[in-house]
Amino acid sequence: MKVANLVGSRFKEKPSDCVIDSHALMIRGGYMKYVGNGIYSEFPTLRRVTAKIERIIRQEMDRIDGQEVLFPVVLPADLWDESGRYESVGNELLRFTDRNDARMVLGMTHEEAAVQLVREYAQSYTKYPFMIYQLQRKFRDEARPRAGMIRVREFTMKDAYSFHTSQEDLEKYYDVCYKAYNRIFQRAGIPDVVTVASDSGMMGGSISHEYMLLTPVGEDSIVICEECDYRANMEAAENCINAEAAPASEELACVETPDCKTIDDVCAFLKSDVEKSCKAVVYQKASDGKFVVAFVRGDYEVNETKLRNIVGEELYPAEITEDSCLVAGYIGPYGISPEADYYLDVTLQGIDSIVAGANKEGYHYTGLNLERDLSEVSYVDISKVRDGSVCPCCGKSTITIKRGIEVGNIFQLGTKYTKTMGMTYTDENGEQQYPIMGCYGIGVGRLAASICEAYHDEYGPIWPISIAPWEVEVCCLRTDDAECKEVADKLYQDLQDAGVEALYDDRDVRPGAMFSDADLIGVPIRVVVSPRNLKESSVEIVTRDKAVKDMIPVGDALDYIKNLRRKLFEEIESHVEK
Amino acid sequence: MKVANLVGSRFKEKPSDCVIDSHALMIRGGYMKYVGNGIYSEFPTLRRVTAKIERIIRQEMDRIDGQEVLFPVVLPADLWDESGRYESVGNELLRFTDRNDARMVLGMTHEEAAVQLVREYAQSYTKYPFMIYQLQRKFRDEARPRAGMIRVREFTMKDAYSFHTSQEDLEKYYDVCYKAYNRIFQRAGIPDVVTVASDSGMMGGSISHEYMLLTPVGEDSIVICEECDYRANMEAAENCINAEAAPASEELACVETPDCKTIDDVCAFLKSDVEKSCKAVVYQKASDGKFVVAFVRGDYEVNETKLRNIVGEELYPAEITEDSCLVAGYIGPYGISPEADYYLDVTLQGIDSIVAGANKEGYHYTGLNLERDLSEVSYVDISKVRDGSVCPCCGKSTITIKRGIEVGNIFQLGTKYTKTMGMTYTDENGEQQYPIMGCYGIGVGRLAASICEAYHDEYGPIWPISIAPWEVEVCCLRTDDAECKEVADKLYQDLQDAGVEALYDDRDVRPGAMFSDADLIGVPIRVVVSPRNLKESSVEIVTRDKAVKDMIPVGDALDYIKNLRRKLFEEIESHVEK
Repeated sequence: MKVANLVGSRFKEKPSDCVIDSHALMIRGGYMKYVGNGIYSEFPTLRRVTAKIERIIRQEMDRIDGQEVLFPVVLPADLWDESGRYESVGNELLRFTDRNDARMVLGMTHEEAAVQLVREYAQSYTKYPFMIYQLQRKFRDEARPRAGMIRVREFTMKDAYSFHTSQEDLEKYYDVCYKAYNRIFQRAGIPDVVTVASDSGMMGGSISHEYMLLTPVGEDSIVICEECDYRANMEAAENCINAEAAPASEELACVETPDCKTIDDVCAFLKSDVEKSCKAVVYQKASDGKFVVAFVRGDYEVNETKLRNIVGEELYPAEITEDSCLVAGYIGPYGISPEADYYLDVTLQGIDSIVAGANKEGYHYTGLNLERDLSEVSYVDISKVRDGSVCPCCGKSTITIKRGIEVGNIFQLGTKYTKTMGMTYTDENGEQQYPIMGCYGIGVGRLAASICEAYHDEYGPIWPISIAPWEVEVCCLRTDDAECKEVADKLYQDLQDAGVEALYDDRDVRPGAMFSDADLIGVPIRVVVSPRNLKESSVEIVTRDKAVKDMIPVGDALDYIKNLRRKLFEEIESHVEK
Repeated sequence: MKVANLVGSRFKEKPSDCVIDSHALMIRGGYMKYVGNGIYSEFPTLRRVTAKIERIIRQEMDRIDGQEVLFPVVLPADLWDESGRYESVGNELLRFTDRNDARMVLGMTHEEAAVQLVREYAQSYTKYPFMIYQLQRKFRDEARPRAGMIRVREFTMKDAYSFHTSQEDLEKYYDVCYKAYNRIFQRAGIPDVVTVASDSGMMGGSISHEYMLLTPVGEDSIVICEECDYRANMEAAENCINAEAAPASEELACVETPDCKTIDDVCAFLKSDVEKSCKAVVYQKASDGKFVVAFVRGDYEVNETKLRNIVGEELYPAEITEDSCLVAGYIGPYGISPEADYYLDVTLQGIDSIVAGANKEGYHYTGLNLERDLSEVSYVDISKVRDGSVCPCCGKSTITIKRGIEVGNIFQLGTKYTKTMGMTYTDENGEQQYPIMGCYGIGVGRLAASICEAYHDEYGPIWPISIAPWEVEVCCLRTDDAECKEVADKLYQDLQDAGVEALYDDRDVRPGAMFSDADLIGVPIRVVVSPRNLKESSVEIVTRDKAVKDMIPVGDALDYIKNLRRKLFEEIESHVEK
């Protein structure tokens, strides 16, 4: 491919709407084009990257006996009625009707379609286990698409579904898939992806893991223990408090706290410790509007996902009016209206002499002891883990919070879908059983963007050779110089003949423009053919990451490049688990 | 792959809802599963076929300098507003709104998206010509999906778009693409696809061709001249009448024709020749309901597409009431109400003494001579060509009508999209110009189904080796026989080691069940390992099309199969244009 013919423009100016580097570089480099909110087209340069990622994924899925299938993008709503998700999933599920007023949805995930495909096939235990996967477009009507290809509404996803006759068998395959995922990321050139335990969210099921590429611009918070192997995402990370009940030491007193709107105001006014305060965060139930109050220690934050899982339904931030049973700014667990549900977070456990709202305008309690003062006390985990929190695994206060981009996830789904959709098989004893499922996803475009985010400099992406749009770029700095053109032409031809994916820039542009385009395209090996180099009968060979920069005699260039290419591939292979 | 593990059930019973063989065989063979009206999932066996078709298409598109891109499935309605198609296309375009009430459509074709992708890139003549293509899902909300994968609502399509600075350049590339399409069909094993001139329909543009696979169950009618090279689809075929004006020989007379509801009734009653009769077919304009009457010779049929193109807007079959200006059953061109528009078909040209409706309940005219009796006469081509019609190319009455399945199409779009969407480039003289476009489509699933339709027997598909799900199937007839199992196991392993795509049936089932499954999977080369064959130290090797059936010594089997495989590929290659 000649750069002169490559469809897609490259330019210098950073687009104003790009908040992360990978997004800006992929727009500036002619990788993708905005079509609508959270919807992009892929230019040829990006399509080559995503095609290589797709090939790696297919090879690894086939390697663990996956069988490729294809489900539709547009699905009848009936299928989602069967699983109950037509009702239970929020607005991310795009619902519409066709010309005959039949209710349809855009597939945002394909558990229902997977069960529908195989429920007649897999009626005997002898058919198990098996795994099917697809590479297909998906649409999620995200409220806030952002960060380019990282969070879009339409995307290509590899989704896989495995079916088993026992939990042990699922777990065995889950481990196999876990390793296959590691191999995918290693082969794609990002061996440093970490896995974290995660909340299963709307997928159902219990055990699940996310694959996180650690980067400061990631939208996910990851809880990591510096001492042991514990890793979890914020939703799944257990807030671990090793507190015993503290004996009460003070009388409960109702004190005036005028103009104290926040817990920090109150603590400052009362000169008390924020670690001995109780903060209220109020939600309402989506079903009936009933208030749900989450009480956490003043210096912690509520984790809405954990709270939602405990309440068991959708919540929205509360609107407290003068007529409400709650007094905004002064809500506390002692004497709270019985009309509101409340939950005490584990961070409040074992604290004596707590400062908390008195459920009365302008007043707080001091000296509150929950065990003493409340008729019934139980604690739940509804708060976010913080830097320095206690690790639930090793028990040390060694938790740190990092940022990451989720590049894949795997779930043990259990029988959620097979039960609701009536998929059964006959076991060895002739009994009807529900198959146990696992599911395994990777977003292709997001992976490409994440790799760009992890490996780039200010000039452009630094693609690992296994997914780079091309392997080698030949830059002919002077097309009007006959020798220069001839050497470059021949090298380009020789590389193609040798099966090397070569990009050729023989445009009549200044070297600066040529190099900045090359940086944006991010090809790993660059060969610079110029009259100056040719005076020494050499060409310059550099790698995009600047690790290599050599002058090589023209006659040796082809072999040198082929060797360098092989070395770059070997470097990637060296990180791949066997 | 072992048949025992292959996801998808095979069965004997023909599904009741399948009207064509390929549909029934692809359901019976575990290729696809019905998900909803016109929506299917692909099982692994079909996915392997479609993946091979996709690879052939990609290679041929890359060979003619196509650059692969990817457009979204879900498109903002704005884009379709720009081209005017949001309004002009009917219900096949699925329109809906997202969570923010933004109007969206499901991409049924991607001209708008293609222009949107490149209109900033291609602002200088130096960027031209170029071609971009994608393989992507599309959704067309067909009123009547049918025939399995032949006419569905959701499908994978390869669509390509080329951009040019002159009509000559477009035509040059159109020819290149025409040949690439021939190569695709030849490589897919169907060298006998014919091209026909076609109507461009909603695509706009003028010259276009369809690639037709001739088969009696095809849903398209193809007009072919037995004498010359003329081929067209029914919509594009010109009805050619070499008639001169006939002198009037009879008086115009209004005669009673009681209870004659059809033109055949009238001709029988009057004992006149149907070839001298005039039939009326009535439509109404979609915009204002105005009547549009198409007059054709009594023995011809109206072609609605031709009529619609001439009227220039959508039409629907008329509802004629007692209040209408038309008298149902008695409509004729003489004395017709001026409130209705009417068109005279070329088949009426040069006929004297016509029988036609008198626009009066129970009466027809006889002796009508259009040139004499109507104040103004002009003829248009709005009728369907018939067997024996005159060829517009060679002038002989040698037209025959055949049935075919459209497996691809190519269009010269002109500037319809670039003009409406404001895409321009600066030419060599600094002038702004609109690029000229071509577009080129192939439906992947339909092609697979068409090949199955063209090549099958009552037992299953006979896949060409280039797109077959596997190349060789090893059938081990007796897994409980140690030697039999050992020979078959080794052969399966040896084939895989030799890079041959092998399917292995080592199930403990009766030979009949094993062979009927093999027939349904349609693998070109079958190796039968049985105790009986092994008594002669041989295995049996047969091809699915029964052309080869040989006993081969066990030791020679691998080489024999590799040779046979190569020969089958060479046979396909021999039909591929260079």
